[in-house]
Amino acid sequence: MLVVKKFGGTSVANKERIYNVAERCIEEYKKGNDVVVVLSAMGKYTDELIAMAKDINENPPKREMDMLFTIGEQMSVALMAMAMNKLGVPAVSLNAFQVAMHTTSTYSNARLKRIDSDRIRSELEQRKIVIVTGFQGINKFDDYTTLGRGGSDTTAVALAAALHADKCEIYTDVDGVYTADPRKVKNARKLDVVTYDEMLEFATLGAGVLHNRSVELAKKYGVQLVVRSSLNTNEGTIVKEDAKMEKMIVSGVAADTDAARVAVIGLKDEPGVAFKLFNALAQKNINIDMILQSVGRAGTKDITFTCSDEDADEAAKIISEAMKFEDINVNKEVSKVSIVGAGMQSNAGVAAKMFEALYDENINIRMISTSEIRVTVLIDEKNTERAMNAIHDKFNLGEER
Amino acid sequence: MLVVKKFGGTSVANKERIYNVAERCIEEYKKGNDVVVVLSAMGKYTDELIAMAKDINENPPKREMDMLFTIGEQMSVALMAMAMNKLGVPAVSLNAFQVAMHTTSTYSNARLKRIDSDRIRSELEQRKIVIVTGFQGINKFDDYTTLGRGGSDTTAVALAAALHADKCEIYTDVDGVYTADPRKVKNARKLDVVTYDEMLEFATLGAGVLHNRSVELAKKYGVQLVVRSSLNTNEGTIVKEDAKMEKMIVSGVAADTDAARVAVIGLKDEPGVAFKLFNALAQKNINIDMILQSVGRAGTKDITFTCSDEDADEAAKIISEAMKFEDINVNKEVSKVSIVGAGMQSNAGVAAKMFEALYDENINIRMISTSEIRVTVLIDEKNTERAMNAIHDKFNLGEER
Repeated sequence: MLVVKKFGGTSVANKERIYNVAERCIEEYKKGNDVVVVLSAMGKYTDELIAMAKDINENPPKREMDMLFTIGEQMSVALMAMAMNKLGVPAVSLNAFQVAMHTTSTYSNARLKRIDSDRIRSELEQRKIVIVTGFQGINKFDDYTTLGRGGSDTTAVALAAALHADKCEIYTDVDGVYTADPRKVKNARKLDVVTYDEMLEFATLGAGVLHNRSVELAKKYGVQLVVRSSLNTNEGTIVKEDAKMEKMIVSGVAADTDAARVAVIGLKDEPGVAFKLFNALAQKNINIDMILQSVGRAGTKDITFTCSDEDADEAAKIISEAMKFEDINVNKEVSKVSIVGAGMQSNAGVAAKMFEALYDENINIRMISTSEIRVTVLIDEKNTERAMNAIHDKFNLGEER
Repeated sequence: MLVVKKFGGTSVANKERIYNVAERCIEEYKKGNDVVVVLSAMGKYTDELIAMAKDINENPPKREMDMLFTIGEQMSVALMAMAMNKLGVPAVSLNAFQVAMHTTSTYSNARLKRIDSDRIRSELEQRKIVIVTGFQGINKFDDYTTLGRGGSDTTAVALAAALHADKCEIYTDVDGVYTADPRKVKNARKLDVVTYDEMLEFATLGAGVLHNRSVELAKKYGVQLVVRSSLNTNEGTIVKEDAKMEKMIVSGVAADTDAARVAVIGLKDEPGVAFKLFNALAQKNINIDMILQSVGRAGTKDITFTCSDEDADEAAKIISEAMKFEDINVNKEVSKVSIVGAGMQSNAGVAAKMFEALYDENINIRMISTSEIRVTVLIDEKNTERAMNAIHDKFNLGEER
């Protein structure tokens, strides 16, 4: 069996943790399996590099920033190989040049294009543990690139796909994917299995332990993901496409309190108004989430949308400069609560059941948005935890099944 | 004109110094010249990396050690590119993969084999300053290697040779090559020009500011070297092969107080004795410098040699275990004083003049060794500075010519 294991920066932050990771990998190796390890930079080292660069040039060229960033993972992999060697197991560290991790040209946010797996295979055949730098790649100019947020997860999944690995384990500081945030919902339960699509919805909702890109890549190439803790040996959550399994109607509840509602009242009711408004926001890189348009007073219409708390005031300002309307108001005291479940699409009444749970708690719904396997509502922020618990109970998510 | 400039770790140890180097390079660039900069790791960063590795594994694999070491120079070059960019000049940093700096396979002490200069040329054509990582290379397995002591100097000379540079400037903390150590000989004078061979003798005598390997390489490819200070704009010393120039009979005096004399008395006078003795020492990696063999008492011979102070006792111990003899004695209170000069080979009486200077000062000579362009004597350590000054005066080295 070939297993790809990815460990984040906290898992390799110091000597003790490096040895902890080394031992876990060696355990797998000693079962006779081939092991490929993907590592991020140690602890807060990337932040240190950023500070170092900003001290020299507050606006450093991205190409040189990537050249600097990549040393972080190279440090992790070299030290890990030394630790494994000390434990008596042959190991070799490889960087993006050595693995030939080809990406698009864009510095700081490149996308993986192609991996030459020859070197890794040849090292595995010599029964070595192969330790690969996450997050980094090389572009057609032979320059270093980095993969942006969640980059090391993406590296791990891409390697698993290229090597046809039997599974790709993503080690994190939580036990896996939960039916709800255990800090907020008391009887939240760890899920044994979720589908790629459910995982994608969780990721989008900010509740995911994985970045969207890595899940999309895993789905595309059918890489079986396992999300598990680097602190214990619990089984974790498997993420895979499995048509045969009994899909749960609802697999979890997620909440995002970093949401603000902007309501623009009394816009002219004519074609192009929505385009004008959202185009103005897009120009300034403001990400919009839910959108609701309704008929306003005579000859006008109202547009309401949500964005992050941070962007809300800026969004209102941009709209005020770009459009004519009667009134605009910003409310940051709201949050999004969502249910996600692959079985939702074939089960009527799921949304209604969620709304009922909220009605029972006398919680007012301010906006609603749905996808095939998700229902999201916007409610007052102060009610978030009460809403999560009510919904969690309503769908009996705490019960083993 | 194409100029290669090499700066050591102290020259890039902090922000201020990085900007100082950046400005010097930009000055050259603004004259319309092509500039290639070779950098070492910042200040004591290599030592920090060693400490980091030893903490994980006190005997780390050399391959992984080189993987770790190479991040040091990559950090320097990326930060330097950011500084130049901040100063408004286009610059690009390149590592050993990007320059294709091919070396032999030996980790930690590889030798350069071949450089693909295409990437550098193409960047220079775009009028960029090119900043290259010193000390590092890649071997046939596509693994990082490092070049050992004086490695960055070697990188600079090799690049100058590959690019047919007009000159290769080695920046250091001294103004150039002196007729003697200015801390010991008051009227020591900076030399404007020395030949490769003289520089090689100075390097071997421990008085050189350049490592032997880089001088040998410069000689082989006819690269014109300039040794100069990174702290001022003084002209420095040019190192080149110039048959037309008036060769100075003696160009400098050098001393090495880290020398010990080991005398082995009453060895059997039969074939193979010297071999047996020096082979035993070579097996234990003890470097021998001067050797003197003389006839001892009836049927015996004496062998005297010099080595470093550190190795002397160990050497005596090894010999005692390997051979039979009457007596052995170690004297660490000795030093080597040498004169070097390319004109020596065609001028008789140079050695005699040196011995006369020592006789005038009543300094006893314990051993003598010569090469074509060098005379070395072993004297009591306490007389070192007096001997240097006497010789320096005897040859009028302090006088401008």
